[in-house]
Amino acid sequence: MHGPEPGNPEPSRVARAYLLRVAEPPAPALVDFVAEVGPVRAADLVREGRVPGPVADETSARRHLDLGRADLDEAAAVGARLVTPEDEEWPSWPFTALSVAAARGLRGGVPPLALWVRGAGGLGEMAERAVAVVGSRAASGYGQHVATEFGHGLASAGVTVVSGAAYGVDGAAHRGAVAAEGPTVAVLACGVDIAYPAGHSTLLGRIAEHGAVVSEYPPGTTPARYRFLVRNRLIAALGGGTVVVEAGARSGARSTAAVSRALGRVLMAVPGPITSATSVGCHELLRSGEAVAVSTVEEIIESTGRLGADLVDLGAAETRATDGLDGDAARVYDALSTRSGRSPERIAVEAGVPLPRVRALLPTLELGGLAVRCTTGWRRARAPTPSRER
Amino acid sequence: MHGPEPGNPEPSRVARAYLLRVAEPPAPALVDFVAEVGPVRAADLVREGRVPGPVADETSARRHLDLGRADLDEAAAVGARLVTPEDEEWPSWPFTALSVAAARGLRGGVPPLALWVRGAGGLGEMAERAVAVVGSRAASGYGQHVATEFGHGLASAGVTVVSGAAYGVDGAAHRGAVAAEGPTVAVLACGVDIAYPAGHSTLLGRIAEHGAVVSEYPPGTTPARYRFLVRNRLIAALGGGTVVVEAGARSGARSTAAVSRALGRVLMAVPGPITSATSVGCHELLRSGEAVAVSTVEEIIESTGRLGADLVDLGAAETRATDGLDGDAARVYDALSTRSGRSPERIAVEAGVPLPRVRALLPTLELGGLAVRCTTGWRRARAPTPSRER
Repeated sequence: MHGPEPGNPEPSRVARAYLLRVAEPPAPALVDFVAEVGPVRAADLVREGRVPGPVADETSARRHLDLGRADLDEAAAVGARLVTPEDEEWPSWPFTALSVAAARGLRGGVPPLALWVRGAGGLGEMAERAVAVVGSRAASGYGQHVATEFGHGLASAGVTVVSGAAYGVDGAAHRGAVAAEGPTVAVLACGVDIAYPAGHSTLLGRIAEHGAVVSEYPPGTTPARYRFLVRNRLIAALGGGTVVVEAGARSGARSTAAVSRALGRVLMAVPGPITSATSVGCHELLRSGEAVAVSTVEEIIESTGRLGADLVDLGAAETRATDGLDGDAARVYDALSTRSGRSPERIAVEAGVPLPRVRALLPTLELGGLAVRCTTGWRRARAPTPSRER
Repeated sequence: MHGPEPGNPEPSRVARAYLLRVAEPPAPALVDFVAEVGPVRAADLVREGRVPGPVADETSARRHLDLGRADLDEAAAVGARLVTPEDEEWPSWPFTALSVAAARGLRGGVPPLALWVRGAGGLGEMAERAVAVVGSRAASGYGQHVATEFGHGLASAGVTVVSGAAYGVDGAAHRGAVAAEGPTVAVLACGVDIAYPAGHSTLLGRIAEHGAVVSEYPPGTTPARYRFLVRNRLIAALGGGTVVVEAGARSGARSTAAVSRALGRVLMAVPGPITSATSVGCHELLRSGEAVAVSTVEEIIESTGRLGADLVDLGAAETRATDGLDGDAARVYDALSTRSGRSPERIAVEAGVPLPRVRALLPTLELGGLAVRCTTGWRRARAPTPSRER
């Protein structure tokens, strides 16, 4: 359905499969090198060891593992495929945002070289309207209930639920989406052929039926602690916003939340009882102003909108950057001054758009080159820049 | 202990007792009239009906009730006294803030003419470090638990717990403070001699032991629905900040919250389960950005600080307005520019003071005439103005 027959893959696909096997993500030097010389030439040079020092550091240990074609075959055997930036279904906007954030200093803000995908859903289409729902593995009954309800409600509204398939909040969110027979994407820290956690084997199968199980890691790769953190950037990037349902004081969900903010996506947190240890992280995010409070699916949709997708189209079509802005975004843009910064509160009043929505739209306009943050708030970008093309 | 012997009250005290009996609060025209001609002359003119039209409208129906001295005797019989702006214990700063807010358009922003007080605590002293803790009458077990804990923790830290003695959150907050043998003030919508609600008769007695039961309404006045809303402005004014523990979608606590914000006080809301109807109002306040989330007594104290009291001293002493600013306030003031507005976020970074604390301090600096809100954020007032004296 997607990509060519497994028996006859294009050279660029084999090259990227090889490079994913060779370099442990994130591999910033290799990603830049591939962008510079193309995947096929990059793979050849890596294989021969004729690469710049930083790329050699990332590839020399495993460059002898010439398993690109074998990995493609192995993936096909479990119903998986390799989706690459050369494919139409590649979610280019979400991953471009990672590069943009990296240029601004986000450590590890590196797009994947390609993604192993098991599932029927087209990845790009699913990422157009997607929200990451994350939280504690040791979720309370309350957290699991809320995650299931949100997963079900979002998926029913056609919004893809992106999460990490872990126990607790992740699993509950996927389960809610699957129950609604709606789109959901599980991003794994191991190969897409590995059932991890083991108790979620059936769930992973159902996710693949309704959406996709994806990973940067080649078939057979086992999960490792550091891979969960590296994986979290993809969850944040694929979600147009991130909802933290429950998080303890030092939850891994906080890393996804931090990346989400660095990407300019809206970060949302669910209030819970202040007597509950698993809501402490959420309340910290609310108190610091990093996250906006959400209590319902409608509030999540209001806060995230679908502007990201619209802006991608704009950049690609080389039209005027503001042409396709939807209603709220256009009003927020109109409320910006080119001369002086304005506070989100002021802009909300000017535009007649609810403050949480304004807070969600401003960073997206920024990524689209339409708005800039300044010391006194936000102003209109002097000359709209097209969004970066890969 | 406070004020003169009941048998020999000063003319101004008798005059104010009479005026409280005659005019239904809030009586803005009468309050202005008293400020203009003084309480004794105002009482004489009201008694004779020789007053301007707006004052007549507020006083003509009851001006024949010449019960000032009788009310003072009746109050004394139940251990209560009348505290007036002429008394040292009058909390002038909190009530000046009401006038300031009224000048900016707060409807009903009218200070009381005097207050009936039953209890051992000096009112001014108790108001120096005070927080209003309010919420739903139909509080859940969770809300009552949180209110009791907060009441206990605040009072233990020497912070006066101000509330309305109602069932639910109010009563729980007072009860916590009383259990800590700490200061607490109940502001009633009826006479201080009336036990309302009836089930709180014992609690009201214990509040009077540890703090004060106060009211604008003369002895014997029964509660009426509109008096609760009128009363709420005094709760908001006496609290250096307001914590909403639980509130439904249309809770009366929202009116206290609105006044608190109009007074430039920090508004706080307690997160709760999103599945609970009694937390809906709190979550709305958080989501709109009107309130900051608080989960602990320490966070409440951090958000409110004790700047209000410091600024009163400054105004009264006619020293340089910035002389007595405490550490954080001075740093926030220093981080303001005289030329252009800055966002609270920017100021927090410049000052190295946590954002919630900055958000709490800015409105207080504003009331102190040190900072002004502008379209792009906050800037330093060009020439510090002394705080208004009554």
